[in-house]
Amino acid sequence: MASDPLPSWNDGAAKSAILDFVARVAKEGGPDYVRPAERIATFDNDGTLWCEQPLQVQVFFLIDRVKELAARDPGMGQRQPFKALLERDLKTLHDLGKKGLLELFFATHAGVTDEHFAEIARTWLGHAKHPKFGALFKGCVYRPQIELLDYLHTNDFRTFIVSGGGVDFMRAFAEATYGIPPERVIGSSVKTRFDSGDDPSSLTKLGELNSFDDREVKVQNINLHIGRRPILAFGNSDGDLAMLRYTLAGKGARLALLVHHDDAVREVAYDRDFKLSPLAEALDKASEYGVTLVSMKNDWKTVFESQV
Amino acid sequence: MASDPLPSWNDGAAKSAILDFVARVAKEGGPDYVRPAERIATFDNDGTLWCEQPLQVQVFFLIDRVKELAARDPGMGQRQPFKALLERDLKTLHDLGKKGLLELFFATHAGVTDEHFAEIARTWLGHAKHPKFGALFKGCVYRPQIELLDYLHTNDFRTFIVSGGGVDFMRAFAEATYGIPPERVIGSSVKTRFDSGDDPSSLTKLGELNSFDDREVKVQNINLHIGRRPILAFGNSDGDLAMLRYTLAGKGARLALLVHHDDAVREVAYDRDFKLSPLAEALDKASEYGVTLVSMKNDWKTVFESQV
Repeated sequence: MASDPLPSWNDGAAKSAILDFVARVAKEGGPDYVRPAERIATFDNDGTLWCEQPLQVQVFFLIDRVKELAARDPGMGQRQPFKALLERDLKTLHDLGKKGLLELFFATHAGVTDEHFAEIARTWLGHAKHPKFGALFKGCVYRPQIELLDYLHTNDFRTFIVSGGGVDFMRAFAEATYGIPPERVIGSSVKTRFDSGDDPSSLTKLGELNSFDDREVKVQNINLHIGRRPILAFGNSDGDLAMLRYTLAGKGARLALLVHHDDAVREVAYDRDFKLSPLAEALDKASEYGVTLVSMKNDWKTVFESQV
Repeated sequence: MASDPLPSWNDGAAKSAILDFVARVAKEGGPDYVRPAERIATFDNDGTLWCEQPLQVQVFFLIDRVKELAARDPGMGQRQPFKALLERDLKTLHDLGKKGLLELFFATHAGVTDEHFAEIARTWLGHAKHPKFGALFKGCVYRPQIELLDYLHTNDFRTFIVSGGGVDFMRAFAEATYGIPPERVIGSSVKTRFDSGDDPSSLTKLGELNSFDDREVKVQNINLHIGRRPILAFGNSDGDLAMLRYTLAGKGARLALLVHHDDAVREVAYDRDFKLSPLAEALDKASEYGVTLVSMKNDWKTVFESQV
């Protein structure tokens, strides 16, 4: 290959593992050849494709939603957990857990139609900025991962997001940002209501959880939505371990990777103590399971897309 | 266009509506242009892409499964509803309803892994033949619809199956037969179990229904799986009406079609009296809702792929 397809990756074991894997599965007639139809790659989103510190991006979106609702209902801001949200009280928010925050995110959008929600999310993503890095949240996606997605697409992979994040929130930016169309975004979801009687024009989001796309559920949703085992999977937390192991357990060439957030200077150094999405078991067992660790500090030349 | 992309369609209102619609949405700079990313088309399967008479194909698959199970448990064949299945007692089977038969189909595969099920289904589809037409069931797909799918693919549409049929059963043949990969097949499904503890290699199908993909649920599943409103939808029964109306309710150019099985000579003439999947309300309201009726008798030059 004439030019480096992954210029934001430093030379090292992780970059070599990726380049070697893609070359092997794409080599027609080679022992590890995989036909394009079966080149499925799944990516977690929060912490894998974009920054999830100090809170997942959709929690910042939730905070702004609660601000709006509290403007109409002044008592709301005095009640928990809304008070903690408005005050960005990280300790209380982290204690709520990823699922608790997700349920709050869904509850505060109950009654909104699917198309109206998409509009709200796109508008917010058009101006909302990260409190520490100053860039638009959309700019806090990882440059090396954008290159990797492009590289996989060029090599006839079909990439999917498989994330605990709200599916409709991710769909509002995944196509423009990652080149991943809505039907290849799998996430947590709510139940919806469709009334074909009078107005068959839209679906309404309900407050009730349909799927919390984390841990084993990621594998179940891969089966439900994709119907094929991935040959490459990329995550960053214990919530991704089931998906990584399911990927590795298939026959033929496989690659599973984990971002290790060990870069306190350019991002945040964290793993087992991050309550919203700890990396502990997966870190301890990575070597035993054959998972490749990607060090943000050592393997990534550039971190954020906004820095390019 | 030099050659006819739909040679198995007779000239008439239905064929013109299709050719006109595709030309309009694909015409760059035209008033009805739709960018390729948004060219989503959804198709029902049973009765729309292949024959569903006198029973849906997966009921024949179920009958053979029950034969196998009954060979190991001789009392089983004496008990209902298994007796009715083994005797192909159509009246009793039609009374069970589509959902009842589906639940039986799922129940008799509980405990099977996803990959083993795919193998069983592919093997069966490789030899099982239609009792009336004599061809492999795979050959009982409709030739005009295969041409339509090809024509849509050529015009940068992404086609999806959205059917009440079992999703894993359809995925066993949809890619080879229709050119529709597993991730673009949406259907009824069961819950699954994934145990990442000792053996992270596979999912096991449970007997419990996850989704019965019919009527309003088709629209909810389109939202969950695709995340975009189709611009074209094709069905053949009241179970498809919600999907057709949801499709037509979007802004811009839209096309919704219904196969009307009015050909007693080449297939079976039926509509409102077919208990497993009646066409009644959708037939009565087609004109009011702007749905294009496709007459098998008049609009299709050839019916089955096996006749080509």
